[in-house]
Amino acid sequence: MRISELVERTGVPLPTLKFYVREGLLRGRATAPNQAVYDEEHVERVRLIGALTGAAAMSLAQVRTVLDVLDEGADPVTAMGRAVATMTPVTGHSSTNAGEARRMGIRVPDDYPAVGQLDAAVAAVQAAGLPWDDEIAARYVAPLRQMAAAELVPVADMDRGDAVAYAVLGTALYEPVILALRRLLHAELVIGGDAPKET
Amino acid sequence: MRISELVERTGVPLPTLKFYVREGLLRGRATAPNQAVYDEEHVERVRLIGALTGAAAMSLAQVRTVLDVLDEGADPVTAMGRAVATMTPVTGHSSTNAGEARRMGIRVPDDYPAVGQLDAAVAAVQAAGLPWDDEIAARYVAPLRQMAAAELVPVADMDRGDAVAYAVLGTALYEPVILALRRLLHAELVIGGDAPKET
Repeated sequence: MRISELVERTGVPLPTLKFYVREGLLRGRATAPNQAVYDEEHVERVRLIGALTGAAAMSLAQVRTVLDVLDEGADPVTAMGRAVATMTPVTGHSSTNAGEARRMGIRVPDDYPAVGQLDAAVAAVQAAGLPWDDEIAARYVAPLRQMAAAELVPVADMDRGDAVAYAVLGTALYEPVILALRRLLHAELVIGGDAPKET
Repeated sequence: MRISELVERTGVPLPTLKFYVREGLLRGRATAPNQAVYDEEHVERVRLIGALTGAAAMSLAQVRTVLDVLDEGADPVTAMGRAVATMTPVTGHSSTNAGEARRMGIRVPDDYPAVGQLDAAVAAVQAAGLPWDDEIAARYVAPLRQMAAAELVPVADMDRGDAVAYAVLGTALYEPVILALRRLLHAELVIGGDAPKET
């Protein structure tokens, strides 16, 4: 199909699609200089870019990294690692001591990007005067381990390409769901009567 | 103490502190035009701003909202709601149908900010072609309800001011911890053998 049909199919305006092409996020099959045709895969890619830049609130640089990872066909751990490294919380802090992950007994290589992200996140918690100790860590690790295991169940039935796509996109796109749900559940609990009484 | 001592106590450079003052994030007690003194509360506030702009990766506008909420002495639900409204995932999407929260039986007012955040997040999941149904929603809600309840246990023993601070800062600062932990636990599970085999 021509780019004009891609506009109709996706509902994304022509200038935006041309912007994607210019930025290298969308590549049609060239039929002549300055002419390209598109197919169903491009329809899906345009929807994906919309999801990543929309509710997932990714920058263009982050979207490019995620698309590159998907296109590369790396193994799932490498793909997840590269995608994770580009995602928020990206901090100015960097940490190489792998302190928290190791203390909690989470078995991942020390250079996995989320190792430093966890240390930086815990450092911020402590810097703000909020509590952090083994008991509090366990409050998070136990339910998250349960969640992570449930999320990975479908991967067993996927081929490698689908598993990578699910791992990379799932990391990015379920995160806002998780944060919104936790915020809602806090509000529900506080409204429900667990709030401190007026003093 | 003078601002120079605040530099020593916090390790934050003078130009940064002056920037905070200019931006209205830090207000000393004025002793003369262009002269102010600071106390222990300001030391804490400078550390807090560092935590929020550092690992929590908040913009200056977000930090200002959080500090305003803390200073206002609103009730915890209002305070949490205002803080939540300014936090990522902030999306271009807005939704007023409260569809997902209501479908899941989460009892919060329809105009609570995270209601629209959840709908937008779910819309992005679906737009990217990732699965979303009641069974998948339950995978997230059950562990997150357990986590949220554990997080609110300490609030029962706090006075109102502390409860508001804990609710607002806890929402912001434990989020990066949660995301980093989930990413680590995925990697651990995939490395541990739940990854699809080479095909």
